[in-house]
Amino acid sequence: MAHLKTFTADHLEAVAIGAGILGTGGGGSPYLAKLQARDLLRGTAGIEVVQPDDLPDNAVIVATGGVGAPTISIERIKQGEEFLNALRALEAWTGKRATHMISAEIGGGNAISPVIVAAQAGLAVVDGDGMGRAFPELQMDTFSISGVPPTPYAIADIRGHTVVYDHLADATALERYVRTVTIQMGGSSGGSGPMMSAAEIRRAAIPGTLTLAVRLGEAVLEARARHDDPVEAAIARTGGRLLCAGKIVDLDRRFVAGFNRGTITLDGLDADAGLRVSIDFQNENLIARDDAGAVLCSVPDLICVVETETADPISTELLRYGLRVSVIGIPAPTLLKTPEALAVVGPVAFGYHDVEFHPLPGEYGCATSSRLSGTA
Amino acid sequence: MAHLKTFTADHLEAVAIGAGILGTGGGGSPYLAKLQARDLLRGTAGIEVVQPDDLPDNAVIVATGGVGAPTISIERIKQGEEFLNALRALEAWTGKRATHMISAEIGGGNAISPVIVAAQAGLAVVDGDGMGRAFPELQMDTFSISGVPPTPYAIADIRGHTVVYDHLADATALERYVRTVTIQMGGSSGGSGPMMSAAEIRRAAIPGTLTLAVRLGEAVLEARARHDDPVEAAIARTGGRLLCAGKIVDLDRRFVAGFNRGTITLDGLDADAGLRVSIDFQNENLIARDDAGAVLCSVPDLICVVETETADPISTELLRYGLRVSVIGIPAPTLLKTPEALAVVGPVAFGYHDVEFHPLPGEYGCATSSRLSGTA
Repeated sequence: MAHLKTFTADHLEAVAIGAGILGTGGGGSPYLAKLQARDLLRGTAGIEVVQPDDLPDNAVIVATGGVGAPTISIERIKQGEEFLNALRALEAWTGKRATHMISAEIGGGNAISPVIVAAQAGLAVVDGDGMGRAFPELQMDTFSISGVPPTPYAIADIRGHTVVYDHLADATALERYVRTVTIQMGGSSGGSGPMMSAAEIRRAAIPGTLTLAVRLGEAVLEARARHDDPVEAAIARTGGRLLCAGKIVDLDRRFVAGFNRGTITLDGLDADAGLRVSIDFQNENLIARDDAGAVLCSVPDLICVVETETADPISTELLRYGLRVSVIGIPAPTLLKTPEALAVVGPVAFGYHDVEFHPLPGEYGCATSSRLSGTA
Repeated sequence: MAHLKTFTADHLEAVAIGAGILGTGGGGSPYLAKLQARDLLRGTAGIEVVQPDDLPDNAVIVATGGVGAPTISIERIKQGEEFLNALRALEAWTGKRATHMISAEIGGGNAISPVIVAAQAGLAVVDGDGMGRAFPELQMDTFSISGVPPTPYAIADIRGHTVVYDHLADATALERYVRTVTIQMGGSSGGSGPMMSAAEIRRAAIPGTLTLAVRLGEAVLEARARHDDPVEAAIARTGGRLLCAGKIVDLDRRFVAGFNRGTITLDGLDADAGLRVSIDFQNENLIARDDAGAVLCSVPDLICVVETETADPISTELLRYGLRVSVIGIPAPTLLKTPEALAVVGPVAFGYHDVEFHPLPGEYGCATSSRLSGTA
């Protein structure tokens, strides 16, 4: 898979699809981020994309991403400089200027956030992120799991309100402090941090995920153009497998403590007729079970709900009764499957004390067998 | 009333009593602040006290005070450098060094907070504050009411966790953002801000209140030593009046949304026999009513509950059934009685939409008639 060297407006359509699928239901709407990035990149040569191994040793890399519930982020459109204002606050606080941006999470609109800031501030972006997917809480990234200090960290909101956090050793406390202010800000803010060195990025980031998101989206778009099965193309591109194809027959979704939480139930169709699958989510899809309660897939592995016809990603705020969807399971990146990582992003971390994590076979981002692979 | 020129360890006993009375039930325990200040001032010449009119024009004055519920601040003892860490964060953020500290509220332990920071950082203190009493919320100070921008503002907690807020034009939003993080910090933090000029202090501060708190405490201590009535001495010193002397017969106190809230009921004794008075509080005492529901005194006027025997202030977290207390009403400072101020600190601001503010006669801090003045 050839790595991206430059991210241009031409990649936006693909990255919105690819990041939407990797978002496992969350990460914020790629649609609005795509529109903003298109506006910023129009008429430019694009943004330089740098591999972690190619970062200069004195690089200053800042992670960025939106905080809040996706439901709110699509109803309350960003002012546009939230991420930039958070970056500027972090730079003012530390006295250091960023040279590169990196995505806090490649899933959803947050794949595009660093591109937006990079365009506004004239910076490059790193090909990688801190999750390889999306997760609902700040401490659930490989930066924090790998021991990168979580602060200084800054957020800014639609009105320019800015908050800087420092001297927190505990990313879970930072998550609480950031979440609670974001709720007071109206449920959505742009975050910047941590500020990292090249060595920290090489050790702690999941590499190549911006390229993966673009290539995944391209695979879906090409399959649609060829009238092939785009779901199968997505599976082949990601090393995933089809967990169920069916119709949403029940949806319970609430806005609780700053998150979208709930459960969907789907009844299998065609080859999956008779199968009933339920998926619990907290912004992101957390756990998929069959009728008998057996776990089909759980965090940190990716549970991606896409429209069966188009492979368009369905984020948890867009779930609705009657949609025909396919559920794809994708093995999590290796960095998310260490014992240290599972304590933070495994089933237990989300309150599923009775669920043991059984990883899906295969490797994140690498095409392997799928139930349908014989037909590809 | 001769203004203080230097604040020394010898003033601590008096200021703890005086600020406790002016705290109208809140402002945090003066006891713990007194112990810390005694430790810092021991063996020193004390802290320079500057009148607002004597401030150099290039002075940089920072307000400081604790945030949180008094109940928590007495159970969870401060680490000692919360205020200093918040000040240092504010200085780092603004790039300006403070020259003077001022009390955000002269009531309770927060009268002593600027003395503590001044001792730690080698600064002077201003004789004045932003309330002339204590209030439960950040926006309820004369700085904000007079149009001083509420941010930058910083808080720090027992673990050194530090949060800086900026670009908030609205002090009520700042209150929400600060309160919500303080709750996550465990219910108590030290705050620093706003950072003000000499001109802003002259326009927006209530002058002379550190001196008033000390002189009020001295009046009580001297009355006790002379075996005079210390409650009468407090009344004579503050321009207040006795609203009721009696016994607490009911107490309803809860910890809600980061505040002590509740109501006490007292039955009059001796001259007040037959009188039943209830007092609502939110950290501070807000409104005193008689049996028929008639308002005897309401915010912003001060409702001070003291022990009848000693005139020791009873803060709302120390209220208990059976205590013999006297309730003193003191007219609020003029700056709190403008229409702009009443919108923020009058009965309506606390949800009492049916209560009109009828100011007590007299002037804040100036001895006037009291019901018992004939005996003084």
